[in-house]
Amino acid sequence: MNTHPARGMRDFLPDDVRRRQYVIGVIADVYQHYGFEPLETPAVENIETLMGKYGEEGDRLIFRILKRGEEGKTGEADLALRYDLTVPLARVVAEYQAQLPKFFKRYQVQPVWRADRPQKGRFREFYQCDVDAIGSTSLVVEAELLGAAADVLHRLGFSNFKIRLNHRKALSGLLDAAGIASDRHGDALVALDKLDKVGREGVAGELVTRGLVDSAAAEALVTLFATGDDVSGGEVLERLRRDMHGHERGEAAVGELAEIVRLTEAGSAHGLVQVDPSLARGLSYYTGAIFEIAVPDLAGSLGGGGRYDELVGMFLGRQVPACGISLGLERILVVMTERGMFPDETAARPADVMVTIWNADATADAIRLAGELRRDGLRVDVYPEADKIGKQFKYADARGIRFVTILGEQESAQGVVAVKNLTTGEQQVLPRDAVAAHITDRRRNDG
Amino acid sequence: MNTHPARGMRDFLPDDVRRRQYVIGVIADVYQHYGFEPLETPAVENIETLMGKYGEEGDRLIFRILKRGEEGKTGEADLALRYDLTVPLARVVAEYQAQLPKFFKRYQVQPVWRADRPQKGRFREFYQCDVDAIGSTSLVVEAELLGAAADVLHRLGFSNFKIRLNHRKALSGLLDAAGIASDRHGDALVALDKLDKVGREGVAGELVTRGLVDSAAAEALVTLFATGDDVSGGEVLERLRRDMHGHERGEAAVGELAEIVRLTEAGSAHGLVQVDPSLARGLSYYTGAIFEIAVPDLAGSLGGGGRYDELVGMFLGRQVPACGISLGLERILVVMTERGMFPDETAARPADVMVTIWNADATADAIRLAGELRRDGLRVDVYPEADKIGKQFKYADARGIRFVTILGEQESAQGVVAVKNLTTGEQQVLPRDAVAAHITDRRRNDG
Repeated sequence: MNTHPARGMRDFLPDDVRRRQYVIGVIADVYQHYGFEPLETPAVENIETLMGKYGEEGDRLIFRILKRGEEGKTGEADLALRYDLTVPLARVVAEYQAQLPKFFKRYQVQPVWRADRPQKGRFREFYQCDVDAIGSTSLVVEAELLGAAADVLHRLGFSNFKIRLNHRKALSGLLDAAGIASDRHGDALVALDKLDKVGREGVAGELVTRGLVDSAAAEALVTLFATGDDVSGGEVLERLRRDMHGHERGEAAVGELAEIVRLTEAGSAHGLVQVDPSLARGLSYYTGAIFEIAVPDLAGSLGGGGRYDELVGMFLGRQVPACGISLGLERILVVMTERGMFPDETAARPADVMVTIWNADATADAIRLAGELRRDGLRVDVYPEADKIGKQFKYADARGIRFVTILGEQESAQGVVAVKNLTTGEQQVLPRDAVAAHITDRRRNDG
Repeated sequence: MNTHPARGMRDFLPDDVRRRQYVIGVIADVYQHYGFEPLETPAVENIETLMGKYGEEGDRLIFRILKRGEEGKTGEADLALRYDLTVPLARVVAEYQAQLPKFFKRYQVQPVWRADRPQKGRFREFYQCDVDAIGSTSLVVEAELLGAAADVLHRLGFSNFKIRLNHRKALSGLLDAAGIASDRHGDALVALDKLDKVGREGVAGELVTRGLVDSAAAEALVTLFATGDDVSGGEVLERLRRDMHGHERGEAAVGELAEIVRLTEAGSAHGLVQVDPSLARGLSYYTGAIFEIAVPDLAGSLGGGGRYDELVGMFLGRQVPACGISLGLERILVVMTERGMFPDETAARPADVMVTIWNADATADAIRLAGELRRDGLRVDVYPEADKIGKQFKYADARGIRFVTILGEQESAQGVVAVKNLTTGEQQVLPRDAVAAHITDRRRNDG
């Protein structure tokens, strides 16, 4: 019988789960300190809720579920697996608008499923960690979201990351100002996205060849998009503003970018935000600021997001402003594992102490001792069988459990317990009610 | 557009999530103190992994997922949604046997999906909380499992529950001894299960009419199955042993029951275990002790489980003993909600303090103040807009946030912050670096 997990899916053994829970715990704790509240939605949604929200390619990658039970007909699907956390959020906001606060701030850490071709580091089931603020167009929202994300990454031990910032309306303003018709903006962005691969001249050439712009405008666009880290933030904004050539919405967007930079400087993301005129981000629902978190020497990003003021309206029938950021849990875990960034506590031993069973007659007393030690706060495993004591020691040692207790007839009669430290070999006989304190004390001192 | 969750599925708004996480946190904490480690498996399994494990009815209720991506053909399903946590555990034990400890003790808290007809308190997506010990036939396993479950329920505030205990081989021994052929044991149990509905004479009559036993044997069975709480544990075991009429495996099973009772008396389940000869439990994979946790005045159970020494063998090809117990999270939540058993901390306010924005110019300083208060450990919301201050206060109050800060030009210049307690109306001007301590102090004193 095949015992592998299904293709593109993973089992998480105890060490994996502890590492994942550590990261999720930090994320949840930081977000709570920013006033975000937890939300959970079902893994399964009505198929109509999801279709048409993620583009054609997205629709194709949605896992569909066959009708079941009394209503089942062959081959018909009416349900689908959650594809991201943003569309369910928009549905929730529409459904519970009367109960939710005006400014609904939620975080959500749950798995999503995509029928992508599995490959290294890419799975069909993976977690998303989303944080979104609904109900305000204020740029305080962007600044707080970026501050929270920076706090999460700092707490996890990341230091040299940058937050790339751009604005959808700055992007379209620029392309408008360069004389590119809106229905060809997509083509222009595809060409501009090749800067790293084909270089400035290659891209400028393609823009002209495709009949998108004349060569002067192409040169200006390419120059702006290729602006490097060596140019100051103020200078980037200046160049952006200049290249708008008076385009009104574009200039307003540059003003928003400047304000977001100013506000983030007051929070935990200070010094980390770089306005990057070339940042585009794929999803079509963004309407304002967009951002992406990048670590040098790491392909891809640790997270990204932006403002999407029109998505909730697809469910609610009236526009509700929204902005969010999604951290890539799987990617964060990969990087932290490769770089040894997990604190010792996540490599937790399965128990603080293992209670051995001296012989069959001593079994009930071993269980009783385990209960006493647990009441004193210890994590206690009980070896289940009255095997030879050496075999029991070996098992504890192999499992990384440092202390074992021995409770034979003699100890039982005298109200004492022998405690052996498997690391040092040291063995001590202690009054029964002093055992927990002894182990706690040794654990603290030995680190 | 329909914005309800799919049929039988639920959205969990922040208060729901906090309550659920509180219960799951207690369960995980207690299990960790018993030496159990966390495991997570994918929501989606290969369809062959699940089929044929849950009986005909179970197979029908499994949600199937259509093939997707390049391999998709119309109507074909190769994947299915997790139906319980036991079969995935058996698969995991078979797959990773070389990496897992000899006595693998895991807990797992994850959702499962069943295409059941939704009804009050019954959902198509619901959480299971399973704890299982693999690799030992020792009855220490049963005793520790029952002790852990009792500890969980005590910690959650349940006091008057009982653990019903029986043994599959005692049950079959009894029916054998009564002269019922093994292929008719199921029929006999169905008849015996109607004791509450049709009474002792009704059941005895049915057993005879169906040709299962003669009237003397029927009388004996019914008497034993109807044994009430007024009979002592020792007496129940005595009657069970007597009715085995020398049936060897049945008597051995009674011996195991006696030993489990003796060992549980040494742990946290002492005084809670009642041997109940009528307990059958549906699932066919049980091979030894079976148990169920019952609360008086509550239909159904809070959890149940048993020993299943042959299930892992279906995946591994050789037998590996196993025993587990599953707590009913959804049911526990319903009862705790109805009975007001949640501690105050789960009704958490969304933040400890809300920072208001005096006017647009004061925005960056408000964000800076929020960061300072967060560094001092407070959960801080920032009102996102420079609305009239009274409107901002009203919002904080409506959200249950007790403190607000006011930081105008004057305060900013003097390095002070005004802090208003919305419950008492009291307002104090404090040095900026004394704000967090003030709020922490007031929160502690006001409860």
